[in-house]
Amino acid sequence: MDFSSKLLENAVYEMSQLPGIGKRTALRLVLHLLKQPKERTSRLSCALENLRSDIKFCTNCHNISDVELCEICANPKRDETLICVVEDIRDVMAIENTSQFKGLYHVLGGKISPMEGVGPQDLTIGSLVNKAKEGKIKELIFALSYTMEGDTTNFYIYKQIDGLGINTSTIARGIAVGDELEYADEVTLGRSILNRIPFEGSLKAN
Amino acid sequence: MDFSSKLLENAVYEMSQLPGIGKRTALRLVLHLLKQPKERTSRLSCALENLRSDIKFCTNCHNISDVELCEICANPKRDETLICVVEDIRDVMAIENTSQFKGLYHVLGGKISPMEGVGPQDLTIGSLVNKAKEGKIKELIFALSYTMEGDTTNFYIYKQIDGLGINTSTIARGIAVGDELEYADEVTLGRSILNRIPFEGSLKAN
Repeated sequence: MDFSSKLLENAVYEMSQLPGIGKRTALRLVLHLLKQPKERTSRLSCALENLRSDIKFCTNCHNISDVELCEICANPKRDETLICVVEDIRDVMAIENTSQFKGLYHVLGGKISPMEGVGPQDLTIGSLVNKAKEGKIKELIFALSYTMEGDTTNFYIYKQIDGLGINTSTIARGIAVGDELEYADEVTLGRSILNRIPFEGSLKAN
Repeated sequence: MDFSSKLLENAVYEMSQLPGIGKRTALRLVLHLLKQPKERTSRLSCALENLRSDIKFCTNCHNISDVELCEICANPKRDETLICVVEDIRDVMAIENTSQFKGLYHVLGGKISPMEGVGPQDLTIGSLVNKAKEGKIKELIFALSYTMEGDTTNFYIYKQIDGLGINTSTIARGIAVGDELEYADEVTLGRSILNRIPFEGSLKAN
């Protein structure tokens, strides 16, 4: 693309570095900002700058937080012996929305992925293992995505805390609520038969 | 969505004000920036701020430009008696890419759209009419999109310059190069028959 202005070209380039935003979309977004009052652009750039410079992570669960201990970790009503291991803040938000979990979280910040150069030392696994060694954790729930990377990460953590007497579990995988069997993929359906649960237990959940 | 951080919430909110970016996408983009080095965020916010504060528009054609007279208007090889009327800079870029046009542009900055509250006074139509009255323009090519708003704008400008002895034309509408007739929509196909061109003329274009 040939731009008539270096300023415009630069703004479009920086915008197009965001994931899923190509040059055309970036141009559309930048032209939109140009049509809006100046304050809108200032508010956007200030919000991004402030976030990047002042962001804090909870010292206990590594979730994004404005204070040292996030709201969830600081809440005395939550069960600190039950830890749900998740990848990032979006998973925390998704699980919190269900209102079904009363324990604390541990945010890894990613998954082990040799393909993308992410090793255990890039994640907060060390801090999780330390917490485990302090003896406060009774159960660890793995809630990572059901992929090769997720499984690898689960297994790595499992090996690290092996022998500490901590119960481990993963969230249930199976047919989604409201889904019809005939449209489910074979792997999921197969696993849901292997990992079937007692009918009486399923009644309780409803 | 419940955010654990006001800073994060604010950044996501501002990002989600961009067209076509919802809250989830905004969160994904913001989390991506958090994973990148600080400089990336600074570069993005600086580029947007600089663009918004220092942007200039060409005094002749109203295209975005870093200098008073844009490259196209300042080029003595371009035919200043031939003016192509377009909506915004993206159309200029698209037509420039074809290398088929040797005249100058006039960027309206939008189309007349009563539904969106855009009237003739919000566009650069006045400046175009002034240019026309100076008597330098021989032909005006309307290259607005083929919609109600585009047609309205064409007609409004046509009425304003009526009697000044300026030739007007619109870009050709018809079957796209490489398209098969059976898949063309009826209106386009109908118009392409009504607006047929001499076969000898079509040979020249190839």
